[in-house]
Amino acid sequence: MPEMSYQELKPPRRILLGPGPSNIHPRVQQAMTEPLLGHMDPYFFTVMDDIMKLLRFLFRTENELTFPISATGSAGMEASFANFLERGDTAVIGVNGFFGERMVNNALRYGADVVQLNAEWGRIIEPEVIEAVLKSRKQVKLLALVHAETSTGVLQPLTEASQLAKQCGALFLVDAVTSLGGQELAVDDWGIDICYSGSQKCISCPPGLAPFTANQTALDTLKTRTCNVPSFYLDLSLLAKYWLANGGRTYHHTAPACMFYALHEALALIAEEGLEARIQRHLRHGAALHAGLEAMGLTLHAQPGHRLSTLTTVRIPSNVDDLRVRQRLLNEFGIEIGGGLGALKGQVWRIGLMGHSSTEENVLLFLSALEKLLVEEGYSLEAGAGVSAATRNLKKK
Amino acid sequence: MPEMSYQELKPPRRILLGPGPSNIHPRVQQAMTEPLLGHMDPYFFTVMDDIMKLLRFLFRTENELTFPISATGSAGMEASFANFLERGDTAVIGVNGFFGERMVNNALRYGADVVQLNAEWGRIIEPEVIEAVLKSRKQVKLLALVHAETSTGVLQPLTEASQLAKQCGALFLVDAVTSLGGQELAVDDWGIDICYSGSQKCISCPPGLAPFTANQTALDTLKTRTCNVPSFYLDLSLLAKYWLANGGRTYHHTAPACMFYALHEALALIAEEGLEARIQRHLRHGAALHAGLEAMGLTLHAQPGHRLSTLTTVRIPSNVDDLRVRQRLLNEFGIEIGGGLGALKGQVWRIGLMGHSSTEENVLLFLSALEKLLVEEGYSLEAGAGVSAATRNLKKK
Repeated sequence: MPEMSYQELKPPRRILLGPGPSNIHPRVQQAMTEPLLGHMDPYFFTVMDDIMKLLRFLFRTENELTFPISATGSAGMEASFANFLERGDTAVIGVNGFFGERMVNNALRYGADVVQLNAEWGRIIEPEVIEAVLKSRKQVKLLALVHAETSTGVLQPLTEASQLAKQCGALFLVDAVTSLGGQELAVDDWGIDICYSGSQKCISCPPGLAPFTANQTALDTLKTRTCNVPSFYLDLSLLAKYWLANGGRTYHHTAPACMFYALHEALALIAEEGLEARIQRHLRHGAALHAGLEAMGLTLHAQPGHRLSTLTTVRIPSNVDDLRVRQRLLNEFGIEIGGGLGALKGQVWRIGLMGHSSTEENVLLFLSALEKLLVEEGYSLEAGAGVSAATRNLKKK
Repeated sequence: MPEMSYQELKPPRRILLGPGPSNIHPRVQQAMTEPLLGHMDPYFFTVMDDIMKLLRFLFRTENELTFPISATGSAGMEASFANFLERGDTAVIGVNGFFGERMVNNALRYGADVVQLNAEWGRIIEPEVIEAVLKSRKQVKLLALVHAETSTGVLQPLTEASQLAKQCGALFLVDAVTSLGGQELAVDDWGIDICYSGSQKCISCPPGLAPFTANQTALDTLKTRTCNVPSFYLDLSLLAKYWLANGGRTYHHTAPACMFYALHEALALIAEEGLEARIQRHLRHGAALHAGLEAMGLTLHAQPGHRLSTLTTVRIPSNVDDLRVRQRLLNEFGIEIGGGLGALKGQVWRIGLMGHSSTEENVLLFLSALEKLLVEEGYSLEAGAGVSAATRNLKKK
């Protein structure tokens, strides 16, 4: 018999300012302790109906097929490629960060012919680049872009890309993992055919669900597939039969009920705050953080004019130890931030201000904690510069 | 903007005696409200280490690769076929119920050549049938059986099948969704190479995770694959790099932390009870239910000698309305049971006594509620027969 010692579960309280998860509201935590229901319970179906309604509000779409996939954001990405690509289809994919690379990885696994739109990690994919590639290829099945690149802090413009995709008859797929509920996003108005996100970022629900939406144009392509979707678990046609009342509520998998409760409550909180107010809150706190970091003499990594308010990348000053600063933030202040991913490993820190974590208090606390640590680590800066700049910024309007 | 009305989340309290989920212990509910941690937090890694240790104890295995997949039990099934089968491999699959059929569906989607071992829904697959098929085929990659068929209530014997698989060099894959933590199961002693389960049945954790284990023999076959595992999300080699300390804790997906907390606590409760005591508890209550149902003149569906104690199928008496009885159980007693699946739709009821739902009180309450409803629906039976028989059975030893 293997050794059976284990510890009592006592996670420390953290201020989650990394690339996700963000902190969750007490009402969301409480929702998970509501009585567990079976996945075919009549009341449970009403919870599912509410979740779909609230997700349509959040995605700004009228797409009937709008529901969370029962797995994390990465499974939302995979569901997109597994359903809408077949072996030999051409997919044009923007790659200016870690998650663009992951999209390529997914598309290749499902047998697609992938054309990469490359840009420096930290810059957007320019519309001219998209146009040139789309026009040089015949029969592009799908154009995929990451709206908010969590690895670089860049906000990708989408409306021109959407028009270009339509002009060549390609589906337009958008990764909104770090934007949905925090940055402006309008699925229908912007002509996005397929969009997915994660529950644990700007929505401030625990990780474990991938909000997903697809329009009729996208769904029509499922009917002309020559082979089954390889993944049973992510097969949207089967999922739709369970989610949609007109699909007969046919059993597909045992829904993660407590996660649905949490998402229901997190979405209700968003509806109460209002989408516009929520996006403004993210903008305000993002801008204050940016001002504070620059006032400390630090350099923001992402292209000016295309910076996320939900996730900020800042270059690590030379002679400052990446890991040591992050460990001290965690151990001395209980603050989690993220290190660089992939090509930016050791180059940047990633600071998230998402959902319930996007507060004035967190901006000021983080800046003062960082100032203290940087000074102790030998980095020279003007005392209080970061907090002062952020405070001035917060007081505007 | 779509209509934005939604209800306050107020799920009714149910006694979950269906095919899963089962009721969860208050400590498991409470665990989900512990402070949320990031998926790369040092403390979080210790929680993951505990979960792996406790799952090894539960699976009765020393397999290093033993962890939950971050999705429901169906994804555990899919992970098995996606990783261990390649296009053109031969898979021999036992089909004596709905989940055997689903295994076939999964294997076909991943391009395997499938040979079905068919048996009536309600009977086991006989070892002679397995032997005959395995000996008639060259190069069988994998033999797959469902240990506890949730659709029929049948417990499949595994040890002979395991030896037969070894003799022909096939991997032995077992679906333990409705047995792990409730029926006897010994992965290492029984020579099972790959095994998966669901969190929401005999483990009594909410749905959303798929405990999974694979031994070195199985993992060695991953090295000789000619193409990538099609699913990025379920790629075991990548998952292992995140789960195992010697894999460098490489980020793969954002772990569903609150679900991990729940699983940690549910597994701790199992360790406290003891595995043998827990299996005996399930046996005792299953036997009492069987005795009670038969004393009411009802007919158990599953083959005698091969009945699950965790999930019981009973034939619906003629002239009794399936849906109406289940709805009355739900509305008048708050009791959920399951209807028949697939070929058994309208033929049987499925009564689960799993994990925290497997109690004397639930057996007696269910039998008396069913008696009352059956009498009111015009079925004739001897008053109190079911409860009396169950009580006598519970008092044995």
